[in-house]
Amino acid sequence: MTAPHQRGRSGRRPGSPDTRSQILEAARTEFAERGYEIASMRGIATRAGVNAALLHHYFGNKEQLFVAAVELPFDPDDVAAAMATVSREHRGERLVRTFFGIWEEPSHREPMLALLRSAMAHESAAALLRQFGTRVMVPRVTPSVQGPDAELRAEAAVSHMIGLALARYVLELEPLASTPLDELVALVGPVVQRYFDG
Amino acid sequence: MTAPHQRGRSGRRPGSPDTRSQILEAARTEFAERGYEIASMRGIATRAGVNAALLHHYFGNKEQLFVAAVELPFDPDDVAAAMATVSREHRGERLVRTFFGIWEEPSHREPMLALLRSAMAHESAAALLRQFGTRVMVPRVTPSVQGPDAELRAEAAVSHMIGLALARYVLELEPLASTPLDELVALVGPVVQRYFDG
Repeated sequence: MTAPHQRGRSGRRPGSPDTRSQILEAARTEFAERGYEIASMRGIATRAGVNAALLHHYFGNKEQLFVAAVELPFDPDDVAAAMATVSREHRGERLVRTFFGIWEEPSHREPMLALLRSAMAHESAAALLRQFGTRVMVPRVTPSVQGPDAELRAEAAVSHMIGLALARYVLELEPLASTPLDELVALVGPVVQRYFDG
Repeated sequence: MTAPHQRGRSGRRPGSPDTRSQILEAARTEFAERGYEIASMRGIATRAGVNAALLHHYFGNKEQLFVAAVELPFDPDDVAAAMATVSREHRGERLVRTFFGIWEEPSHREPMLALLRSAMAHESAAALLRQFGTRVMVPRVTPSVQGPDAELRAEAAVSHMIGLALARYVLELEPLASTPLDELVALVGPVVQRYFDG
């Protein structure tokens, strides 16, 4: 997994650490307050007190800046790519393996938990995560899901995995917490596949 | 749903509100620090500075005091009873309906979210919820689950529903958040049943 928010498109870190965190903070506020559709690169640049061209140069487009602002330790495109490499009937298992592969790494886990914690405590963080879910993650999962209620099924599948992550890594419920990854994938993969099959 | 922690066995509220919250606070500390097995009514009474006989009189046994201390807005025995009224092949659906029936009520939702929030922020609250899961809830679900890995499957089913509750009530992901309860039960019931069938 790459960490796209660590670097701009050019591969350099955008500006000074202060400018960078100022821009990401402005982006989080803009996305939370105005919503993904209405939020604009120009509006974020104004909030951050930087040039809009600079924003485009360092963060690419609105979606890339949004993903950077959410500060998740994985690239949503990597998740989509991992699923695209297998046939339709194996995508449930592949998604479960990719998802838990990220969580198994303690350094990846903490930023995801921090985001969930904030979302449960503050509506602005919940709004950010809601938009990340519906605008970034669900569109990357939905193409693997059959049927007219594909979005609903994609959300059911992803929220199933989030619930399992909470039980395994936060509550440390046994035997779930110490079940080897392969067994977990074998148990949950077919269930996620069932949601995919519609 | 009754709220067993609101009253003692006798149906009266145990002691003054101060004494009651002192006892429950002492119980939470004892359960979190020592674990459910080692925690004792006597130890909790000592911590709270009250007589152990009084504790038994007002809160019954250790499990009843534990359930009261966790302050969840439902009686775990009601959940078990709801499942016991239907045949084995309908218990998945019944559990999903009972679970979301509790969450649909806004006044029930807040204490459950408060507990989840604390568990994500503090290890002592996570310990309490872990013990509640393994000592109280999982044993009430496991009898409906087939196979040698019944506990693991029960935990997968319950954590699936918790993830859905977060997505529906906290993140308010659409279309999940506005899907009518009956449709949600129709979607998730068979998946939980699949975990039950082993």
